Amino acid sequence: MTLDHGDPGDAPSVPPPLTAVANAARPSAAEEARTVAAATNTGTLASLTADGAPWASFVTYGLLEGQPVLCVSRMAEHGRNLLADPRASIAVVAPDAPADPLAGARVTLAGVVEAPTGAEAEAAREAHLAAVPAAKYYIDYSDFTLWVLRVRRVRWVGGYGRMDSASAQEYAAAAPDPVIPNARRAVAHLNDDHADALLAMTRVFGGYPDATAATCERADRYGLDLRVTTPRGMVVTRVGYFSPIDSIGELRSATVELTRRAREA
Amino acid sequence: MTLDHGDPGDAPSVPPPLTAVANAARPSAAEEARTVAAATNTGTLASLTADGAPWASFVTYGLLEGQPVLCVSRMAEHGRNLLADPRASIAVVAPDAPADPLAGARVTLAGVVEAPTGAEAEAAREAHLAAVPAAKYYIDYSDFTLWVLRVRRVRWVGGYGRMDSASAQEYAAAAPDPVIPNARRAVAHLNDDHADALLAMTRVFGGYPDATAATCERADRYGLDLRVTTPRGMVVTRVGYFSPIDSIGELRSATVELTRRAREA
Repeated sequence: MTLDHGDPGDAPSVPPPLTAVANAARPSAAEEARTVAAATNTGTLASLTADGAPWASFVTYGLLEGQPVLCVSRMAEHGRNLLADPRASIAVVAPDAPADPLAGARVTLAGVVEAPTGAEAEAAREAHLAAVPAAKYYIDYSDFTLWVLRVRRVRWVGGYGRMDSASAQEYAAAAPDPVIPNARRAVAHLNDDHADALLAMTRVFGGYPDATAATCERADRYGLDLRVTTPRGMVVTRVGYFSPIDSIGELRSATVELTRRAREA
Repeated sequence: MTLDHGDPGDAPSVPPPLTAVANAARPSAAEEARTVAAATNTGTLASLTADGAPWASFVTYGLLEGQPVLCVSRMAEHGRNLLADPRASIAVVAPDAPADPLAGARVTLAGVVEAPTGAEAEAAREAHLAAVPAAKYYIDYSDFTLWVLRVRRVRWVGGYGRMDSASAQEYAAAAPDPVIPNARRAVAHLNDDHADALLAMTRVFGGYPDATAATCERADRYGLDLRVTTPRGMVVTRVGYFSPIDSIGELRSATVELTRRAREA
């Protein structure tokens, strides 16, 4: 049996919201991509071999205003590839992948590499060393080249059914989310000790007045992703804060306000 | 200051062995590559966009006699890429990477993808599902294609200064190492409780009679990688078993024999 991707047939149906979702604000694809890129220092480079075939290779990187800074040897295949053709892309997978790998976040940054010069060369060197301390042992060897990937195109995948593209301009202008990488403990605390509050905000602001349970899956600067149980089935919804936050330290007051207003409603 | 890669200048010098290394047998590049490929179910695909640029993207895979089996949607960029040009490579990083990411093992498998037919299509489907259980939810959707990467070229990197290529024939004929993925606990036990035995075998069989300490870094089917302290500096050497082993269960007798013969020497 074959099925259209959009028509899963025997897959469980997703219950629609019964009331409007009050505030569905969430990070843009560009912000999500900046967040993934900033979360680690390793990725996989795709470069072109002499005969134009695609070559995947593990690399380390730092970031200069979101642009990956690579330090690779001309003695390595990918180093020779980049010297001959600057077209490249890098795939980065967010750390702490879930058990189902395709449920996790990843990003592809595509463009061309350039050897930075002048002040940018120094900044790129510092950016690489800050992210990859062991590079101090080889970054000054004459066979190593520092490359900045000029990002022309961005593809972000947040998991099943969550994906979008971002332009070079959007990516350059975005900032990494300041909450996502620091929210693990706070999210666990919300789930362990404030299940009633999550349920209240889901019923009032999340579009599911018939919710019987709600678990927080992620907190970011705009709000919470909530996995909701209803008599009609499971669904994921969104509860945005009353205003965006700039640090993990503001998460408590943002969720306290959501809870208070939900209980007053 | 720039330096030749081969002439690290201020890097610590590596003391040469004082006696012959008795048995330096170790896995071939093809065996190492098969071992890395078999150790996980995720990698990064490099494919070609419509204009021939390299595109890196996260993928899951199973293995059919060492060949990666992908299951990707035509709705995804990499799916469209493979349909238009079958040239592809996949980079796989061994799990449990060390703190310094470039000290870990990784492999690039390059070739062309083919849609398997007949009995191979069924075997490829089973291989993918065995490695990626969640694929059962989408593998039969009509927009998904099963691809087998026909491996034409293999590049293995085992860490700093350890790398080699393998031919398609060597890769196809090799088997994953049966000891490496299962040896973590046994290696810790050797280091915790048998440091004297490791030191004895290093002095007699490892080429360093002046060793003052030896730590096991890895066990594979052919022997042990040992990090050795000498008055002349630190070095990594090799102590091979008297005969290769086929399972982790044989590691104890192989190392007991090495210890006994070292103490008799």
